[in-house]
Formats: sequence, C-alpha cells, structure tokens
Amino acid sequence: MEEGECWAECLDVAVRIARTAGQLVQEAVKQEKSVSSKSTPTDLVTEADQQVEDLIISTLRERFPSHRFIGEESSAAGEKCVLTDNPTWIIDPIDGTCNFVHSFPMVAVSIGFAVKKELEFGVIYHCFDGTLYTARRGHGAFCNGVRLQVSKEKDMSKALILTEIGAKRDPNTLDIFLGNMKKLLSAPVHGVRIIGSSTLALCHIASGAAEAYYQYGLHCWDIAAAAVIIREAGGCVIDTTGGPLDLMSRRVVAAGSQEIADYVVQQLQPISYGRDDHDP
Amino acid sequence: MEEGECWAECLDVAVRIARTAGQLVQEAVKQEKSVSSKSTPTDLVTEADQQVEDLIISTLRERFPSHRFIGEESSAAGEKCVLTDNPTWIIDPIDGTCNFVHSFPMVAVSIGFAVKKELEFGVIYHCFDGTLYTARRGHGAFCNGVRLQVSKEKDMSKALILTEIGAKRDPNTLDIFLGNMKKLLSAPVHGVRIIGSSTLALCHIASGAAEAYYQYGLHCWDIAAAAVIIREAGGCVIDTTGGPLDLMSRRVVAAGSQEIADYVVQQLQPISYGRDDHDP
Repeated sequence: MEEGECWAECLDVAVRIARTAGQLVQEAVKQEKSVSSKSTPTDLVTEADQQVEDLIISTLRERFPSHRFIGEESSAAGEKCVLTDNPTWIIDPIDGTCNFVHSFPMVAVSIGFAVKKELEFGVIYHCFDGTLYTARRGHGAFCNGVRLQVSKEKDMSKALILTEIGAKRDPNTLDIFLGNMKKLLSAPVHGVRIIGSSTLALCHIASGAAEAYYQYGLHCWDIAAAAVIIREAGGCVIDTTGGPLDLMSRRVVAAGSQEIADYVVQQLQPISYGRDDHDP
Repeated sequence: MEEGECWAECLDVAVRIARTAGQLVQEAVKQEKSVSSKSTPTDLVTEADQQVEDLIISTLRERFPSHRFIGEESSAAGEKCVLTDNPTWIIDPIDGTCNFVHSFPMVAVSIGFAVKKELEFGVIYHCFDGTLYTARRGHGAFCNGVRLQVSKEKDMSKALILTEIGAKRDPNTLDIFLGNMKKLLSAPVHGVRIIGSSTLALCHIASGAAEAYYQYGLHCWDIAAAAVIIREAGGCVIDTTGGPLDLMSRRVVAAGSQEIADYVVQQLQPISYGRDDHDP
C-alpha cells in the first residue's frame, strides 16, 4: 500500500472514532461528573477524559499496532510526550474540560496524526453540535464536508482575536496575560473572545470566523489536529516568537494571514509554561 | 380578554417573529455585510440590524398598534429610550453584531416585553443553531421546550464566569475591565469566558452552564428578555451595586444564586457608561 493511501485510511478511522468518542462525551455531559485537578487547581480532569482517551487509544492501537500515541491523559499519567519519526497519533479526548464540567457547550475531541514529525491530518469533533472539522495535508480543510477558507482580512483594526487563559493564575502570569489582551484591544481590534476550547477556537480561524488566535500554556494535543486544518484552509500557524511552530513549546499564534500573525507576534509578552517534551 | 391571556398571545407572536427574524439573520450571515460604527469605532452596526429591527417592529405594531417599542437601532436613530407603564416591546434585532460581522457563530435575536415597567416575558433565538429560549413571568423558563434551571453551585472557586468587553476601549476603561477580570480569576474561579453576545451569555446563566455574568456598557435590549428567562430559571439579576436591577443603567450582575451574585458585586470596580434613558 502507498503511504499516502495508508494515511487516508487512518483519517477515515480517525473520523469514525472521533464521532464515537464525541457522542460518548455528549452523553457524559448529562451525568454527574467526577472532577479532580492536575497541574494547578484550575487544570481540571474528569473520569470521562480518561475513559474517552482509553477508548480512542485502545481502538487505534488494535488497528495500528506499530503506531505511537501521545494523549493528554496518558501524559498526565507519566507517559513520555516525545514526537519520533514513527506514525504518531496526538489526542485530546476532551478539549475544554472546564467547559465540559459546566456543560458549557464548547467541547471537542481532537485527533492529530504526524509522520516523520510532520503533521499529516487532523480531525476535530464538536461534541455539542456535532460539527466535524477535518483536513489532510495537501487535500484541503473541511467543515461537515464544506471546504474551509480563512479570513482574508489584513486590517488589524477589523480583526476578531481569540485566546485562552491557561491554567496558571498567579498574579504575575495574570498580569502578562491581561497586558497582552490590553495591547490587542488597544490596537484596536474589533474584539477579543475567550470560549474555553483551544481546538474549537482554532477551528474558527480555519473557518474565517476570526482573524487570529494566540495562547501560552496549551499543549501539543490542542494544536496538532487544528494546525493541519488551519494550514489547509490557507492560514498560518507559527511560534509566538514569529518562527516556525514548535509543537512541544506550549505556545502558538495562528492567523488567516502572515501579516495578521506577525502583528500579533509583535504585541505579545511571553508567558513561560515549560515544554511538553521535558523530562518529568 | 384577561391581561395574562393577552400577554400569552403576545409571547406566541414574539416566538414566531423571533424565529423569522433569526432565520433572516442566518441568511444575512452568508452575504457581504455593509458595516458602519455608532458610538465608538468598535460599536458596529450593519444594514441587517436595521432591516431586521424594522421587520420586527412593523410586524408587532400592525398587530398591537397601541404598544410601544424600544429597539437598539431606533434608539441609535434618536428615538427616546424611555420605559412607561404602557405595554412595551424591548428589541435587539442582532445581539452580537461584531460576531455577526465575522460570522462568529454566537448571534441572537432578543425580544423582551414589559407592562407597568415590569418584565412579563422574554424570547431569545440563537441565529446559528436555532436554539430558542423563552420565559413568561410565573410560568418558568424553557430552552426548546425543556425547563431551564440555573446552577446550584455556591462555591466561587468552582464557578464559571461570563462577561463582555463593552464598546469603550480607552486605556482607563480597559484597565478597570481587565482589573475586574483579574480579581475574579484570582478569586480563584474555574474560568472566565467572553463569547461576544450578552444575551446568549445570559442564557448560559439560565441553563446552568455558568454561574455568573457581569457587564458594564450593555443596554436595556440586551437584558430585558434574558432577565425574565434567568429569574424564571431560579436565578437572580441585579445591579452591579447589589441593589435591584435598573433596566436603563447599562450594567448588570446575573447569577444562579444570590451568594454568587453578592460575591461578584463585591469584586467589581465600576465603569461608567451613562444611561439608556438619558436625554441625547
């Protein structure tokens, strides 16, 4: 089998398992949630996160026994988060766990796939409304089968900007986070939105509903699938320093155009969150 | 006809016109938008806002010729925004105009109804997903026909808080806005969300998906319908000072419980936006 053909088959499997997992999440929303915290009191995890990740990884492992897996909950449990040249699935079983806990309707399953450290495809399933975002490198990005196109707006004063707060809430981190928001609001821009799901926010960049997204403190499983979707929709996904995206760096700027991305990069004061691939 | 019966009929008409208007908005999203600004460069208005408000008011006026109307666009055009004892419809044709301009999928039609200065019912229609929120005083609040119930959470450290930025973006206003956000994030709370539609954010309080909402700079047409929906779902809607809601004061705190509302009130430094019923 050709490699490209094989990845197309992997994408089909990813779509099916994302839908199944997403429907499980939607059912779990209606039930009592067992909530605990991870790195900080606001870095939440539920039993559902772990169950859904187990389901996704066990299904994929059975089908593709030689592949590797990076998952939010496996990493929290101590598994090393290192991207090798092997085909690797990068999974967030419930992106927007805090939203999930509150039944706030912005929650997604995110499944990215990389080979030789290059992202090949991404699948993001919105668990509340069933919207499915997919993209495969070189084959375009789609929302429920309709081709996606980023915003063509290059005037920052007409831009809508998305961000997320991150789990660190110490006064210094909050001051930098809010200072960055002030700089952008003073640019001025049309507005800033915080919806509580990095992957769905990034999908809004792909669909052209917002011009830029930036965040410090997210993880490789928040970016992997979305990065393919945005690039295939014509947008750019880069590091907050302006250089190429470093999937393990816990920071990102995504935008409809290089011009808007560059502008956002210039405004940002960094927040340090360490790396996903550090030794624990 | 009994008055109560009459208001029930008005509510039926409101639901029908909200759906029709909402579907018009959804169609308008796909088209090129003609955007201009009102009080500030970020206080946007489109031709669609004006057309949809005209449709709603002309339909209602034909049916209820003795009633009065307060609408976002009529007020912007100079009509007095004064609540009398007469039956009065309070209308936001497109709440989330900035979202609408960007096709960011959080936009609503809001129709409230007051008699003798008391809010009798409210209808809010989510133009992107077709969700319909309704409530009539003393008769409960519903989302697509399912009874709504606010969150019972009283522990602020487990609360999800919603707010909106407001149209004023001068450095002093931004400092107060971001300072309020910092105080709440430091409380700590689970998170803060900014979705760009006051009425839909308030509906999330009614549905229990978030514990509290606060804002300076919104208008009576953002609050009127939602206030009935939240109260009928068991929540409270008060002034940012802790006193009773003043519909024309351009400020509000809404919460699932009095305890959470009181806590939010204590954190807030005020931002002055004047009143809706001032002389222009």
